[in-house]
Amino acid sequence: MKAAVVTIGDEILIGQITDTNSAYMAKALDKLGIEIVEMASISDTKTQIITTLERFQNRVDFVFLTGGLGPTRDDVTKKTLCEYLGDELILNQDVLNHVANLLQKHYGRELSPMNREQALVPSRASVLFNQVGTAPGMWMPHGKTVFVSLPGVPYEMKHIFEREILPKIAREFKRPYILHRTIMTYGIGESLLAERLVDFEDALPNGLKLSYLPSPGLVRLRVSGYGTNEELLKQAVDAAVRDLSGYIGDWITSYDEGQTLEVVVGNLLRQQEKTVALAESCTGGKVAHLLTSVPGASAYFNGGAVCYSAESKMQILGVSQNTIREHSVVSAQVAAEMALGARRVFHSDFGIGITGNAGPATDETSEGVGVVYISVAGAGEPTTMRYDFGQPREKVIDRSANKSLEMLQKEILKNVQQ
Amino acid sequence: MKAAVVTIGDEILIGQITDTNSAYMAKALDKLGIEIVEMASISDTKTQIITTLERFQNRVDFVFLTGGLGPTRDDVTKKTLCEYLGDELILNQDVLNHVANLLQKHYGRELSPMNREQALVPSRASVLFNQVGTAPGMWMPHGKTVFVSLPGVPYEMKHIFEREILPKIAREFKRPYILHRTIMTYGIGESLLAERLVDFEDALPNGLKLSYLPSPGLVRLRVSGYGTNEELLKQAVDAAVRDLSGYIGDWITSYDEGQTLEVVVGNLLRQQEKTVALAESCTGGKVAHLLTSVPGASAYFNGGAVCYSAESKMQILGVSQNTIREHSVVSAQVAAEMALGARRVFHSDFGIGITGNAGPATDETSEGVGVVYISVAGAGEPTTMRYDFGQPREKVIDRSANKSLEMLQKEILKNVQQ
Repeated sequence: MKAAVVTIGDEILIGQITDTNSAYMAKALDKLGIEIVEMASISDTKTQIITTLERFQNRVDFVFLTGGLGPTRDDVTKKTLCEYLGDELILNQDVLNHVANLLQKHYGRELSPMNREQALVPSRASVLFNQVGTAPGMWMPHGKTVFVSLPGVPYEMKHIFEREILPKIAREFKRPYILHRTIMTYGIGESLLAERLVDFEDALPNGLKLSYLPSPGLVRLRVSGYGTNEELLKQAVDAAVRDLSGYIGDWITSYDEGQTLEVVVGNLLRQQEKTVALAESCTGGKVAHLLTSVPGASAYFNGGAVCYSAESKMQILGVSQNTIREHSVVSAQVAAEMALGARRVFHSDFGIGITGNAGPATDETSEGVGVVYISVAGAGEPTTMRYDFGQPREKVIDRSANKSLEMLQKEILKNVQQ
Repeated sequence: MKAAVVTIGDEILIGQITDTNSAYMAKALDKLGIEIVEMASISDTKTQIITTLERFQNRVDFVFLTGGLGPTRDDVTKKTLCEYLGDELILNQDVLNHVANLLQKHYGRELSPMNREQALVPSRASVLFNQVGTAPGMWMPHGKTVFVSLPGVPYEMKHIFEREILPKIAREFKRPYILHRTIMTYGIGESLLAERLVDFEDALPNGLKLSYLPSPGLVRLRVSGYGTNEELLKQAVDAAVRDLSGYIGDWITSYDEGQTLEVVVGNLLRQQEKTVALAESCTGGKVAHLLTSVPGASAYFNGGAVCYSAESKMQILGVSQNTIREHSVVSAQVAAEMALGARRVFHSDFGIGITGNAGPATDETSEGVGVVYISVAGAGEPTTMRYDFGQPREKVIDRSANKSLEMLQKEILKNVQQ
């Protein structure tokens, strides 16, 4: 089964927003065994929409469209779809009642003519109810292709996708199997990995594929396979992953799809019933953001302080003025006192301290742009490392964040093994 | 001038990563007056790449491709492009030297055969030098279309785009004018805005367009115009924006393109030489992230604490145990003490305290999911508000973050006016 994902809206084409809907839908569809052959972003104009519908008509099983369903004039998707399908718009009373309730409850307002238009749907469409917004989703089979139109607001789209679309596809369509296993490696570059995997790639069975996805401090490897027999496919992929770990086992932090270091570290902390706290400077809350992006992080993440100024490092974290004066604010000593400070003030088992120059300009320190000190304090003395992450700024921040989680993982495991 | 943006890689099609390159390129090209007619994401296979190149050949002036240039086997873009152009790959000595230097400097390694392949480019391509990575960009005119191939790693792509591509286009191509003005409105819904703007839209001159871009707590309005006379276009757009503010002036926070509330608030703080600090609970660092995403935020953002647990609220922020016991942790009183605590411990002029239930489950408080208390402390007593942001979790977090910045803005302006 094949699908195309189409996002509609000028705000995407002029770069005003980043399209996150496509990645979300692709991930969910991939799990159901549906292959995305293309994603396209087009403007909300009749010609563009119709050209794109025609291009995918009968070439894919599903076309998922998001956006263009708002109550305002710049949204022409619904009318255009209706015209393409040779259908007419009719009022859906259930949707109308829902929109009226929503307006009454959250804004204390009555229905306006513009709100009423939200309740118009093509007569032959199945309505996919939108409980968290006013624009309904629509399911419209046409020829060999099902066109599915959804609102562009991400949480509304997700809501309909999870509650309506995924169960419907799982129930009504027979699909092949797609299996991906993602192997997370930290601290080794892409080309070095590839060199170590030359023999592995040569021996990879037909129907399986290895892909590399590098980002600062982290390379994800993906073994993918397609097949009709789930059990055989699973065995082949499992065997390949086992084989792979023989070549590069030292660098692997996880074998679970999508398991990032923040998830792995979170699980370790939870298992050990330990907690962590952060003192971030140049990473500006990036590590806190990574840790709290994992559901349930409150069980082991006690909190963090983003301390940009030397004053706040002293005041909040208890870094001593002498240490800053003697060693400068970007130094191993300050990183260590930050780690100890975070551990102490947040009553945690582990503390991480990060101080450095992310660039583009340096502060008044002796260290150059890209230099970062990271310190992790566990039960005993903190472990502190100096890194030079080069440039640009976002690479320094990402590599610092990943490296601090790597160091935390090592520190936790050290304590476990003792 | 028209362009298409094509991202290559299975990791995008299976939803493993979100494509951010397209939005970046689109924004930069739009500023140069180049219209993006389509963005497409396709897999790194010969057939898909060639079909897509053919589809855009001679229909657009530029095709910008990212991805598929890595040193590993799953990257076939360079070979495929070469085949499509009827060209051959030759070794570029400058690129080879650069790759060798980079490996030596950062990894202490010699060139491997795989690294050497990074230095192969089509013989007729102009090389776009990549100083921050190993894969060079390539500029390849073919028929009426220029094909530009770039590495997929975002900071490498951006580096080449800024240093090589944008100046080259500005220098060598004559372009029309595209003008967008974005008007930021906070605290009013899309359909209510649209109702107030019916007459405005009716009167909008030919060639100008109004678009709505809603997100939780914020609707961006965009007035766009295309033309060949820059001065006339600018006058028309300016007049429309002035006209617009007559209809909805109360809700507008800024008239500058892309100026979010965090930028506006940052500018206000900088002008007033004031500072702010945060105490976040249910927003988990989102407000800190918004504030620190603005370059130069360290001038006015003293720091923030993410305090999930009741203990850390007491320990770090000095919230009293009695207040928590009497009013529960999600209460106006706790929000106010958090705001005051943040202001005090970070030595700031303003403090923001946020406590609430983002969901999906509630903590042991009397308040339901979606209820958030936000408090802003300025020179005097804190101002505290209760909101019910409904569900889902991400909407609660986004609306809380935007609302807290709205409240901060009001508090700053109040102090200015006094």
